[in-house]
Amino acid sequence: MTADRDDACRPLVIFTPSGRRGRVPPGTTVLEAARKLGADLDSVCGGRGICSKCQVSPSFGEFPKHGITANVDALSTWNEVEERYNRVRGLKPGRRLGCQTKILGDVVIDVPLESQVHKQVVRKQPDERPVNMDPAVRLHYVEVAEPDLQEPSGDWERLRDALADQWDVGKATIDISVLQVLQTVLRKGRWTATVALHRRSADDVPRVVAVWPGFRDAPIFGFAVDVGSTTIAAHLCDLTTGTVVASAGVMNPQIRFGEDLMSRVSFAMLNKGGADDMTAAVREALNLLFMEIAETAAVVPDSILEAVFVCNPVMHHLLVGLDPVELGQAPFALASAGSLSLTARDLGLTFLKKSAQIYVLPCIAGHVGADCAAVILAERPHRSSDNLLLVDVGTNAEIVFGNKDRVLACSSPTGPAFEGAQISSGQRAAPGAIERVRINPKTKEPRFRVIGCTLWSDEDGFADAVADTGITGICGSGIIEAIAEMRIAGIVDRSGLIGSADQVGSALVVPEGRTHSYVLHERIDGQSDRILVTQADIRAVQLAKSALYAGARLLLDEFGTDGVDRIVLAGAFGSHISPKHALALGMIPDCRLDRVSSAGNAAGTGARMALCSLAARSEINEVVHRIEKIETAVEPRFQEHFVNANALPHAVDPFAELSKIVSMSNATYNVPSAASGQGKRRRRRQSSSSSSGNLN
Amino acid sequence: MTADRDDACRPLVIFTPSGRRGRVPPGTTVLEAARKLGADLDSVCGGRGICSKCQVSPSFGEFPKHGITANVDALSTWNEVEERYNRVRGLKPGRRLGCQTKILGDVVIDVPLESQVHKQVVRKQPDERPVNMDPAVRLHYVEVAEPDLQEPSGDWERLRDALADQWDVGKATIDISVLQVLQTVLRKGRWTATVALHRRSADDVPRVVAVWPGFRDAPIFGFAVDVGSTTIAAHLCDLTTGTVVASAGVMNPQIRFGEDLMSRVSFAMLNKGGADDMTAAVREALNLLFMEIAETAAVVPDSILEAVFVCNPVMHHLLVGLDPVELGQAPFALASAGSLSLTARDLGLTFLKKSAQIYVLPCIAGHVGADCAAVILAERPHRSSDNLLLVDVGTNAEIVFGNKDRVLACSSPTGPAFEGAQISSGQRAAPGAIERVRINPKTKEPRFRVIGCTLWSDEDGFADAVADTGITGICGSGIIEAIAEMRIAGIVDRSGLIGSADQVGSALVVPEGRTHSYVLHERIDGQSDRILVTQADIRAVQLAKSALYAGARLLLDEFGTDGVDRIVLAGAFGSHISPKHALALGMIPDCRLDRVSSAGNAAGTGARMALCSLAARSEINEVVHRIEKIETAVEPRFQEHFVNANALPHAVDPFAELSKIVSMSNATYNVPSAASGQGKRRRRRQSSSSSSGNLN
Repeated sequence: MTADRDDACRPLVIFTPSGRRGRVPPGTTVLEAARKLGADLDSVCGGRGICSKCQVSPSFGEFPKHGITANVDALSTWNEVEERYNRVRGLKPGRRLGCQTKILGDVVIDVPLESQVHKQVVRKQPDERPVNMDPAVRLHYVEVAEPDLQEPSGDWERLRDALADQWDVGKATIDISVLQVLQTVLRKGRWTATVALHRRSADDVPRVVAVWPGFRDAPIFGFAVDVGSTTIAAHLCDLTTGTVVASAGVMNPQIRFGEDLMSRVSFAMLNKGGADDMTAAVREALNLLFMEIAETAAVVPDSILEAVFVCNPVMHHLLVGLDPVELGQAPFALASAGSLSLTARDLGLTFLKKSAQIYVLPCIAGHVGADCAAVILAERPHRSSDNLLLVDVGTNAEIVFGNKDRVLACSSPTGPAFEGAQISSGQRAAPGAIERVRINPKTKEPRFRVIGCTLWSDEDGFADAVADTGITGICGSGIIEAIAEMRIAGIVDRSGLIGSADQVGSALVVPEGRTHSYVLHERIDGQSDRILVTQADIRAVQLAKSALYAGARLLLDEFGTDGVDRIVLAGAFGSHISPKHALALGMIPDCRLDRVSSAGNAAGTGARMALCSLAARSEINEVVHRIEKIETAVEPRFQEHFVNANALPHAVDPFAELSKIVSMSNATYNVPSAASGQGKRRRRRQSSSSSSGNLN
Repeated sequence: MTADRDDACRPLVIFTPSGRRGRVPPGTTVLEAARKLGADLDSVCGGRGICSKCQVSPSFGEFPKHGITANVDALSTWNEVEERYNRVRGLKPGRRLGCQTKILGDVVIDVPLESQVHKQVVRKQPDERPVNMDPAVRLHYVEVAEPDLQEPSGDWERLRDALADQWDVGKATIDISVLQVLQTVLRKGRWTATVALHRRSADDVPRVVAVWPGFRDAPIFGFAVDVGSTTIAAHLCDLTTGTVVASAGVMNPQIRFGEDLMSRVSFAMLNKGGADDMTAAVREALNLLFMEIAETAAVVPDSILEAVFVCNPVMHHLLVGLDPVELGQAPFALASAGSLSLTARDLGLTFLKKSAQIYVLPCIAGHVGADCAAVILAERPHRSSDNLLLVDVGTNAEIVFGNKDRVLACSSPTGPAFEGAQISSGQRAAPGAIERVRINPKTKEPRFRVIGCTLWSDEDGFADAVADTGITGICGSGIIEAIAEMRIAGIVDRSGLIGSADQVGSALVVPEGRTHSYVLHERIDGQSDRILVTQADIRAVQLAKSALYAGARLLLDEFGTDGVDRIVLAGAFGSHISPKHALALGMIPDCRLDRVSSAGNAAGTGARMALCSLAARSEINEVVHRIEKIETAVEPRFQEHFVNANALPHAVDPFAELSKIVSMSNATYNVPSAASGQGKRRRRRQSSSSSSGNLN
């Protein structure tokens, strides 16, 4: 048989699962056929039988669906390369090396998951989203021409020619730091090398960002990093498989310059060089965090080729070295809103190779950051048929609402109450903090759980179990549950006022000046401190939850709907909130309880998706561009919604199961003027959006 | 009149000197018409009447050649912008501002030189070449939209939009260091700014490399730098006019690691970190040199946006941070041969802005560097109808031969004799060094001149004039002339042997062991040292000149010609050699004396041309790519030519004028075996290329 035969006589090859099919000249290797037909089949060595990335599973027999019969002689027999590979490293039964196997007749070739470049990686955590692999960095094995006295040319030019000839990669460029080691590497590899090529987008000119002697049979890695105001979390991912090999977090050292975002902006405003100091601090922390994670995973820095960052706008600016001062005042102008493609040297991330690539997701607006973009990428409201509400709760809540037709976003200044700040016994979520609360509606007795212990406080052994950590305070999710339970138990009324001991019928209510507090925990170790929920605590949470609710409500107004089909709570705090209690408290608009879920660390997931996929980067850039940004600060209706949302909506029925309780929209309640404590606010009865029965 | 009129009724505008012509709608400004018709008319402010770069000189009257009559009402009358500009800054008579003047009827518009972007800048030095301005960096004034709370976007995105809208510059990128100052600049300029856009090539995506508040009415600059083994020379050029505003040179501090290239390569080979030390040294010297020049010219670093480097391959590698060790051994592989586009931060050139662009010309081969490429750019053998021989003399001579059809290049290991090294009384060209020598053929008495003094040694006042510097030694050009004159005076024979005092008939010949020396200067200040030309000196020069000649001869062979139409001597040394004496000594192939010239610092000129013109960069890249590289080390004929070239060809006729003397090709002489002193060499009579009468 020759390649000159009529096309119809050529073997028909069908690749699964892609469905790519076509006729190829007999003798074509499976790898060549895959490339020609656009089937997704990996190869690092370029068909030299070294890398084993191109393993395939041929199928034989009758395929009526495809209209072919595949005989066992449709493929060439095992050659010595396959024999040797099988002997040394072992091939799974039925597997062939695509670069060695020649197509001689009609055949169906299955490309197993691990041989696909663009494989979908299913996450192990149930709350994680699958990632379609489409990494920006890929390895290519090349054989480079040796220097020739008669034909002088540079090592780099010969490498570039090899990439063009062997990988069809034209016009590649090279990072100066890689050029500086190229001579040594090429000679050490005896004029063979494995090259890491990075593309900033699918149509970008590829750039050599790393090179190793000979064939590199080891994975390459990238970091997905979420730089939060409080904590920095990083995940080290295998850029071929998408697997997270190690993760860790540290406190953001910028906390010493200011607890929350605005105090850090103030620090930058008031101190010359203050922004630079904060930039240096976060970069230093990142270097240490990267080192710690890499050591844990036993991964050398040399193999870490990219880092993707998500962060709120202030963290974004301080990371990149941009002055955040403009973000502290209207019109909250970003220095740069779009995604950024940089190098580790640009950001002083000295733990990484100088040539390691940095990608920072785009910001959406001055208060809606790249972290929110990452949440959107993870939760994809822009692909949703439902009306989806995404809430990333923090000092600023970032709120996204929409569906495949329209997506809107805003931020809302919730303040730090949800993080345990401005709460009398509040603290960060840490071992010893009360995180779960239940109050018996009859006895008004509380029981609770603390972080670091799986027992409830009324269970046997609790005291021993918490002996180490103590019971140190109450964290954000704890205060939400405590207040919601106090409302359900009738300790707090609709306006948020704690009744007196007589009114409530419990000695756990104690007077505090002119108001009352509820004793959540009386310390029994001789210390006099008690963990209380005070009237002021409730007021602080009311302000925070009103802001959150008002922001969400504003987006619904702009969208022109009352209906939320689905709510996803994102962020470290969001993932710990009890949806039931959040609804009971009126933090979020009404929604069926079973349609309220936590996305866990959605921003981190989005960062990992962007790390693993150029298509994901392209997607989020496109989506961010068309998101409708709503500025709450200049929107009069936001104030209206805010004021109207102050009440605690739960209709008191202490004996009913919470899951059966009828929740009503905040907006159906009028708010007593005493409730806000923040001076004059407009009040008005609103009757548009009453709803019922959603909480089931 | 409206824009809807028939095209034939529209005004015809003709631009000179470009000859661009076409009809435009009446009311079109001259600047718009120039852009539309492709006439070269500068503008920084984009037509806002601020920059005055678009001045034109309209002509009125009958233009039979163009077939039009231009009436004075063909242009709109002076508007208030022009009135104000003339009042405040003055317009030359007959000049108009192109952006303010509207075309109403047929007219001829002359664009004066200073209003052309791509002007040809004629150099003031007679040996300098004209430069066609086509700079990589250009300024653009923009008005940027203010941030809007309702339409959040980044300052950078709004600037990019402004560049697209106002300058049709799409997809611009920005250097991170510029992004970091952008917010401040835009606010300082009240949302106007002048942006420096850099393109690496004509079709490159433009990059913002600097930004200033408001309209910047000041020039921008670049450095053209020649990093030689011995000296580093830099010229600071105005990137708009092409003018050199200041120049200076320093010794290359790498000399402490090794005098010549090969000793520096050895240093890198033998000392761990040795290459890095040399890299650090040259970069530090560059930073100091840049600072000195900028201070001299009162130019702030902020306005210096680019630096172009030329250097030999070893200097090239050490500048860029590449290990030069491979250049010390066959096959002399370059790490990178092509031109390099980098930033000041990549090279640690801390005096410059981090975003300042670096361009390094391409190397031609392992021994033929970017300095030679610069010489080619300056002298353009590839555009020559004549057969042109370019010789850049140094420790390695870089030799180029060819014409518009073919260009060949090689290097030849001349050794350091031409730089005064390995010569008994040799020294660098510095005040006190003998640089010119004449010997009376009758009396054998020498006379000479020293660097730093215009008097000959036999003129009145010479002793006083050199009292400060003394007469310290003999430099490269001095030893050439001394030996040529000794040959002409019959002191030295064809084989290079100095005769005895008796044979020569002069007491100035003194015995030195078994050979003789010639006393060029007897110190009269009580010191016993004499400045001699020894037999060993002559042998050293013979080796050097043989290598040079053999390299040139090899290129002629490869080219298939005996004829050299024109010779250009380049390099610091080349520009000081007397062509007559070089021919008499047989350093270079025969050529009419009036066709032998010095290009002065041709490498520096080439660097300036590349600095001022993207077209020049494109040209040299294209030429270097197609140059035929000849490697002398593996070419047997090079050895033959080398051996055959050892004789001193001048036919002895001491009484004839030098200019009338018949020179004969080196190759017509057979060489005594004693002459080389370097062991066994092949010798053979060669008769092919005798020539005569060329030295006139």
